[in-house]
Amino acid sequence: MQRMEEMILANGKVLPGGILKVGSFLNQQIDSVFLREIGEEIARLYEGCGVTKILTIESSGIAIAAAAGIVMGVPVVFAKKHKTSNVDGAVYAAPVHSFTHGIDYQAVVSTDYLTAQDTVLIVDDFLASGNALRGLLYLCEQAGAQVAGMAIAVEKCFQGGGDELRARGLRVESLAMVESMTDTEITFRRS
Amino acid sequence: MQRMEEMILANGKVLPGGILKVGSFLNQQIDSVFLREIGEEIARLYEGCGVTKILTIESSGIAIAAAAGIVMGVPVVFAKKHKTSNVDGAVYAAPVHSFTHGIDYQAVVSTDYLTAQDTVLIVDDFLASGNALRGLLYLCEQAGAQVAGMAIAVEKCFQGGGDELRARGLRVESLAMVESMTDTEITFRRS
Repeated sequence: MQRMEEMILANGKVLPGGILKVGSFLNQQIDSVFLREIGEEIARLYEGCGVTKILTIESSGIAIAAAAGIVMGVPVVFAKKHKTSNVDGAVYAAPVHSFTHGIDYQAVVSTDYLTAQDTVLIVDDFLASGNALRGLLYLCEQAGAQVAGMAIAVEKCFQGGGDELRARGLRVESLAMVESMTDTEITFRRS
Repeated sequence: MQRMEEMILANGKVLPGGILKVGSFLNQQIDSVFLREIGEEIARLYEGCGVTKILTIESSGIAIAAAAGIVMGVPVVFAKKHKTSNVDGAVYAAPVHSFTHGIDYQAVVSTDYLTAQDTVLIVDDFLASGNALRGLLYLCEQAGAQVAGMAIAVEKCFQGGGDELRARGLRVESLAMVESMTDTEITFRRS
């Protein structure tokens, strides 16, 4: 998506530790006009794939998932992050390690909201090492749901998660693919 | 909003401790068609009020704020919840006590995303005692921003937060106002 690359180049900031800050338009502050375009692009990419549900994880994936849901007209489910491994009730749970925040958590979703009848589109704002997405995949697996694929706003290719998921045969669509970045330059992967 | 009341009656569940569960259509799982209607209704209520920014707090307010933002075409900012009072950087911060979760946290937003030039619409999914909303108001006050009002999906009137905010002269629009609820009956306030 040309415009995602333009927005990153115009407004993104590279911070120490390989962090790409897009807080001015994609998370924390969200450009709503651009958000609608993101929803439309995700809907276009997965048109005709029989998606019945969008799955994301709190917090920063929710706005993007909601935008895609509004355009596609399918329900959005978000997994919650629990700090403890003591998760009660009828839920699916998957352990996730966050490199960004240096913590482990459980991604949790009620068994009511993800079923074997669902064809799921997994949506998130970032794909780096892919741990959060593998957690969401594992939730779908527990539910017996089909996975149509993933739609990601920004993939940091150099962290390898996206290519690992593609090598497993999964469809991964990233609206911008950052091949490398330094303090002064961001380079995108061309397919 | 007639349809919010209908959705609550058809799909809401009253749990012990005065909790109204709307996870099947409003949070955790979100009915995207209904979400768009919510966005349109909020836009209608605050049409002509000069809103420049929508402010919410993670996580369950984000989808509603995003829907309103998409219809209104204004940026959405979400405050983050920090568990500690040690919040660094150029941020506004407000202490909040959550009765639902029995914890204290800081609602935090970057000073970049809320300014004295903004006219803010505060959006959230629930209004009970009003602590989270008072925290968001305090963030606006620190920024010197105007507050056009608040738009809430579900107000639990019997917990008093909404009336306290209205008594302070604030405009509070709740799409459904639950006057009372028991295991078997939910009663709405009629204005």
